[in-house]
Amino acid sequence: MRRSIATVCLSGTLEDKLSAAAAAGFDGVEIFENDLLACPLSPEQVAARCADLGLAIELYQPFRDFEAVPAELHRRNLRRAGHKFALARRLGAGTVLVCSTVAPEAVDDDDLAAGQLRALADLAAEHGLRVAYEALAWGRFVRTWERSADLVLRADHPALGLCLDSFHVLSRGGDLAGLAGFPAEKLFFLQLADAPHLRMDVLQWSRHHRLFPGQGAFDLTGFTSQVLAAGYPGPLSLEVFNDVFRQAPPDRAAVDAMRSLVALEERLVRHGPARGYATPPPAAPAPEGFAFVELAADAESGTAAARALAATGFAHIGQHRSKPVQLWQQGEARVLLNATGTAGAAIGAFAVETGDPERAARRATALLAPALPRTRGTAEADLTSVAAPDGTAVFFCRTGAPDGWLGDFILSGTPGPARTGITAIDHLALSQPFDAFDEATLFYRSLFGLEPEHDAELAAPFGLVRSRAVTDPGRLLRLLLDGTLLRRGAWAPAVPDPQHVAFATDDIFRTARALRDRGAPLLDVPANYYDDLDARLALDPALLAALREHNVLYDRDGDAEYFHLCTEILGSRIFFEIVQRSAGYTGYGTANAPVRMAAHRAAHSRSGLR
Amino acid sequence: MRRSIATVCLSGTLEDKLSAAAAAGFDGVEIFENDLLACPLSPEQVAARCADLGLAIELYQPFRDFEAVPAELHRRNLRRAGHKFALARRLGAGTVLVCSTVAPEAVDDDDLAAGQLRALADLAAEHGLRVAYEALAWGRFVRTWERSADLVLRADHPALGLCLDSFHVLSRGGDLAGLAGFPAEKLFFLQLADAPHLRMDVLQWSRHHRLFPGQGAFDLTGFTSQVLAAGYPGPLSLEVFNDVFRQAPPDRAAVDAMRSLVALEERLVRHGPARGYATPPPAAPAPEGFAFVELAADAESGTAAARALAATGFAHIGQHRSKPVQLWQQGEARVLLNATGTAGAAIGAFAVETGDPERAARRATALLAPALPRTRGTAEADLTSVAAPDGTAVFFCRTGAPDGWLGDFILSGTPGPARTGITAIDHLALSQPFDAFDEATLFYRSLFGLEPEHDAELAAPFGLVRSRAVTDPGRLLRLLLDGTLLRRGAWAPAVPDPQHVAFATDDIFRTARALRDRGAPLLDVPANYYDDLDARLALDPALLAALREHNVLYDRDGDAEYFHLCTEILGSRIFFEIVQRSAGYTGYGTANAPVRMAAHRAAHSRSGLR
Repeated sequence: MRRSIATVCLSGTLEDKLSAAAAAGFDGVEIFENDLLACPLSPEQVAARCADLGLAIELYQPFRDFEAVPAELHRRNLRRAGHKFALARRLGAGTVLVCSTVAPEAVDDDDLAAGQLRALADLAAEHGLRVAYEALAWGRFVRTWERSADLVLRADHPALGLCLDSFHVLSRGGDLAGLAGFPAEKLFFLQLADAPHLRMDVLQWSRHHRLFPGQGAFDLTGFTSQVLAAGYPGPLSLEVFNDVFRQAPPDRAAVDAMRSLVALEERLVRHGPARGYATPPPAAPAPEGFAFVELAADAESGTAAARALAATGFAHIGQHRSKPVQLWQQGEARVLLNATGTAGAAIGAFAVETGDPERAARRATALLAPALPRTRGTAEADLTSVAAPDGTAVFFCRTGAPDGWLGDFILSGTPGPARTGITAIDHLALSQPFDAFDEATLFYRSLFGLEPEHDAELAAPFGLVRSRAVTDPGRLLRLLLDGTLLRRGAWAPAVPDPQHVAFATDDIFRTARALRDRGAPLLDVPANYYDDLDARLALDPALLAALREHNVLYDRDGDAEYFHLCTEILGSRIFFEIVQRSAGYTGYGTANAPVRMAAHRAAHSRSGLR
Repeated sequence: MRRSIATVCLSGTLEDKLSAAAAAGFDGVEIFENDLLACPLSPEQVAARCADLGLAIELYQPFRDFEAVPAELHRRNLRRAGHKFALARRLGAGTVLVCSTVAPEAVDDDDLAAGQLRALADLAAEHGLRVAYEALAWGRFVRTWERSADLVLRADHPALGLCLDSFHVLSRGGDLAGLAGFPAEKLFFLQLADAPHLRMDVLQWSRHHRLFPGQGAFDLTGFTSQVLAAGYPGPLSLEVFNDVFRQAPPDRAAVDAMRSLVALEERLVRHGPARGYATPPPAAPAPEGFAFVELAADAESGTAAARALAATGFAHIGQHRSKPVQLWQQGEARVLLNATGTAGAAIGAFAVETGDPERAARRATALLAPALPRTRGTAEADLTSVAAPDGTAVFFCRTGAPDGWLGDFILSGTPGPARTGITAIDHLALSQPFDAFDEATLFYRSLFGLEPEHDAELAAPFGLVRSRAVTDPGRLLRLLLDGTLLRRGAWAPAVPDPQHVAFATDDIFRTARALRDRGAPLLDVPANYYDDLDARLALDPALLAALREHNVLYDRDGDAEYFHLCTEILGSRIFFEIVQRSAGYTGYGTANAPVRMAAHRAAHSRSGLR
């Protein structure tokens, strides 16, 4: 399958967009009219630029408000079309997109519409072009693909065919059940966009909230496979616009877009008979949890983190053979403390435990994850890692393997009994840069076969925050992605959205007592929070008293409960959380996040570290 | 009237919010429950803090999902209410807001609802409190103020009354026609919010898009005057939340909020008999155009700007007596070039021509515009100026007055004949910081009696851009406000949204020729733009050729036409525009802005000044 992207998906000038599409490996582009209008290159120069970049011009778009109008306006519309067809020919675009009219002069007359579309197709044929007719979800009369298909059949012209756009069909709750009987030779173009389910005006939804396949809630796999089953031979072409992509760096957005197509094609191969696809990536090995998390810290914050690890009951059991990296462990939770960080302490890397690290790495590469260079000492394990959208290094490990990563460490002890009851890493919370939220979702989803859940939007003290978990079916690898709805301004505190590492315990109060006894820097929770818990949930007074005494936050979902407590921020960007979840609780206590954020802010202000 | 603001309107911790509200001069606050929950101060400490700041606690809010439920749940709801009433009493809040239920357990039974609300009011009375009941626009059964009023009357309890919220009423297209007969003693609370007209889910509309009065499209004056006419004796209280305010600096937002109330009260006084208002600001003197615009420039960009002014046909006719400020003039367009700027050239100030500058200044002060200090030499005019939200200094001048500002300049010449046909300043385009867009609209609207028009949203090369004009009925003072929909990230070019000064001409082509002859740095417009003009509008070929030859952009509205051309960016932040508008054209050629932005970007890249 050829892979194509509409230039409207990317930010910048037309030249910026073409370079980004080519660099990400696209075979072709749709040229968006407004991009061309604002471009100092002539159409011939644009065509030459595309040829140099190895990009086919699959479509010129859009031509609006054509059909079903009075004769005099039809004459003017044909003149307008003539100009645009001449332009498309100069560009070397074989197909021009015509979308269903929203003009006030248009009338509801299918015969008139079909006749005028036939005249348009005649004109296109004279220019050696084809017209792909698309039903806008908010078209004046033609709003469904079925009606646009009916007009194409009525017009009955070889240069007139159908353009299907997944957003226009799926946003209206439509489906392609009727497509099987439609002539394959009239399937001219396919545009793909995902989107979240929203209750709003469909035009605004389309303009501001489209997403690349796999980032939203639409069934793109089912949709696309039906179009392919009906015999569509053209490219898979992305047409996505939203407020964030419109201003994000185009190179990154193009890679994100390409990843979405590679992952979609992989699902299509699984879904039905393959046809013309590139070899899909190696299948995702099932994640088996976290092998380790690595904190990158400078000297000062490294000392603070080491002190916090000790106070949390971790044992320093090893030292890397060639690097200033310490291994700390309690239960199955392993933390590497890397003293080569630049400023503050943050999650620099984490490792996914898997039975086939090598295959996982090949899959990541096939999904355009940038491989990270690594210096390796003699006799050290070859750990492959890739960079997540936020820069975090992601490793693939088999801890028990004879040549595994533990061999890189000189072990000076054993974890011994779990001193404070911590058993494993429950989840990592990774704060995402403003532009990277949907990109990160797709990255983790496609690399590891994780699925998003628990989408939430929180009114936090310094602005709205999004939160979304991605996890595997076995819930062994839990990642919590946070991000702001708006890029932060100068008013936000230095640490509005710290990362955290959440450790699991089976007995939150035992762990809380042990941490307090060891002098861990635990976060104070306001008394008002517990008064509200009491008012809302009428908890058992002994339980409430224990929560209050130990600054434990609480959530429940039906009978399933979640207990969590936090340390203060360690240095500048990270804190630890200890969680206890009862069977059936799959969340993260997200509703408590604003209280936790305000408490961190208060603690930070007190310590003068703001 | 007491002036109040809900803490949910402002960003930060509760302590931040209270300080900001007090500093802006509010008399009271509504305490939003989540702000209290996350606050380390006890309710008594919050009460003391408010007392210290001179803030009454007018309301504690919200209490949700109470009425019309089965008996067992009612019992639990009363327990929950008891806790919250105890809390309100500790806070010293006299009134608690209860909003209509959205609970799945609730039933559609007005008698049950009224009975349970009566029980709630009994409990409130025991605590010495009142309950203000509000219909949420998305309530399960109670969605209109009329139905909430009916329940209040049915329940018939002195501690139960009505809370009216302008958003909940006006977003549903409701009105207060029926309020006249409602007992005044049961009008317990009034919450005010404006909003733009949007077609979307009303809950999302409410959560993300409320605005302060005068910033949106609702008739707050009519709404509020009806509530006051019905005998409401309480405070005017703002309850506004949107994505931008939630993360904006609270001090500025609080001033913006207070300005909206002062301006609303002024309209109320004009609307009907005054009652308990503070003295309204002095009436706005009609603006008579721009007295001058002042460009602040450093030495290098000052030279570039002076060269551009000369090439645009301006004459350097005067020098300030005590400052490095030059006066340039052509026709009635006066430009001051101030060489004390720090970096680049930008609009540092502009002066509004008015018959009563002193009254205008007093009005600005009454509307919380920050007065700017000014160093004055001997025998120089006392020019009062205030700071607009983006920092631009705004002066009030009567140019022809004996002691007017022109006397500050030693005149070395006269403007003479208009060398390039420029007659006046047509408009100023002021790029607004991300957070300041709605604030700026209200600032100019309230200070000068301007009205917003021509709201537009543009898909510009580096992200979505908003554009809105504010102008007086005589269209003598035209300001064009631009802003981004999202704060820019690192990818945006250095000058994504420059300001500009637009000069008027009666003959765009004469002026274009003259500018070219004088070597003005005119901006090239892509040929593709003119091909599209031809396709769309079928212009007279001679006109099209002239537009193309002179790089003139074109727009029309019916028969009314607009011609405009631009210089390249002068230094780093500003360019000049020359415009010709035919009678009846009130716009700004906004649809051409993306083409202009891309052209500026291309010119900037060519000159290596990115």
